[in-house]
Amino acid sequence: MAGGQDVAGGCRAGLTARVYLAGPDVFLPDAEHWAGRKKSVCARYQLIGISPLDDLADEPAEWSTLPEWQRIALRNEAHIRSCAAVIANLTPFRSPSADVGTAYEIGFARALGRPVFAYSNVGDRFTRRTLDFATAHGGASASPGRIWRDADGMLVEQFGLTDNLMLEAAIHGSGGALALPETEAADRWADLATFERCVRLAAAALSA
Amino acid sequence: MAGGQDVAGGCRAGLTARVYLAGPDVFLPDAEHWAGRKKSVCARYQLIGISPLDDLADEPAEWSTLPEWQRIALRNEAHIRSCAAVIANLTPFRSPSADVGTAYEIGFARALGRPVFAYSNVGDRFTRRTLDFATAHGGASASPGRIWRDADGMLVEQFGLTDNLMLEAAIHGSGGALALPETEAADRWADLATFERCVRLAAAALSA
Repeated sequence: MAGGQDVAGGCRAGLTARVYLAGPDVFLPDAEHWAGRKKSVCARYQLIGISPLDDLADEPAEWSTLPEWQRIALRNEAHIRSCAAVIANLTPFRSPSADVGTAYEIGFARALGRPVFAYSNVGDRFTRRTLDFATAHGGASASPGRIWRDADGMLVEQFGLTDNLMLEAAIHGSGGALALPETEAADRWADLATFERCVRLAAAALSA
Repeated sequence: MAGGQDVAGGCRAGLTARVYLAGPDVFLPDAEHWAGRKKSVCARYQLIGISPLDDLADEPAEWSTLPEWQRIALRNEAHIRSCAAVIANLTPFRSPSADVGTAYEIGFARALGRPVFAYSNVGDRFTRRTLDFATAHGGASASPGRIWRDADGMLVEQFGLTDNLMLEAAIHGSGGALALPETEAADRWADLATFERCVRLAAAALSA
């Protein structure tokens, strides 16, 4: 793809590594502020946090004619290509699951072979959250084998995971790690304690 | 990654191409039946539909010790690697957006350079669906510039798209196409008319 820098996986050379900060944080009212806060946490662990809100150093001139939504997407993909790893916020977003843009970016990073680190500020398991959602939207019912389905008859994943199995398998399979809250977050969008634990795990893995 | 076949992008050699059928259809009560129906549609357009439910021809022996959720994920990733394109079902799933597993697979395919074709059986725009969801979950409000936010203050995307911009940009940027219903689907999980239009677009593009 055009517009990407080379991977700055500079840990081996003693440099800091670039990590892409995926998550619905970009939708927060003060998104730039929160991107800055997250970058500060990264810097404390010798990582360079790259926000989806960041400009691209070498954005191709031909992108200027594209609609904004396409430019944002191409920029995010270029940012991911330029990073050594992704740190994704899986906090449920308008559903029992993570934000779909974040899920997309995890898949993108995974196919590029980048390790995926992730965290959530909600500690409930995916099955519990999906059953709660289904109960509030038409109901849920279980077969004799205790296989749960929602009101549309759609299966509820029951693997004891934090989110859809593709996301969690990508984290484990890529050499990443998942951080979950030790105590319930007071504010699911503002609390950075679990994010910081995730950054610490990423920094340790990337410098290993 | 282990376990993948080479890409069977055989159109240029006059063969049929393999296409991965991403979507929450795997959660349907009779998922194998619907996978078969979709494969039959693909076959009418000289495409080989590959379902996430399909076995992998050359599954590595070492996967047998992994938990089921990891095997499923690795198998799906290998299926995508073995296909020339993805045809994704973006019909909203337990949220205003597509299924996150499907979003993950679109990102995965995009990073591999595969064209992403997609369809939805719901024609409403993403902004409309998100505002409906927000209204039912605490409310939505607009600033003077008509920038809508949900009850958490989180921004509502207003680009006139069908889903999150990363998904739609991947479809356009990869040389794929998006099919939307011409009339409202009678059953959002059973109606295959828009899926068939999407398959026709994929077949035309892959044989070009």
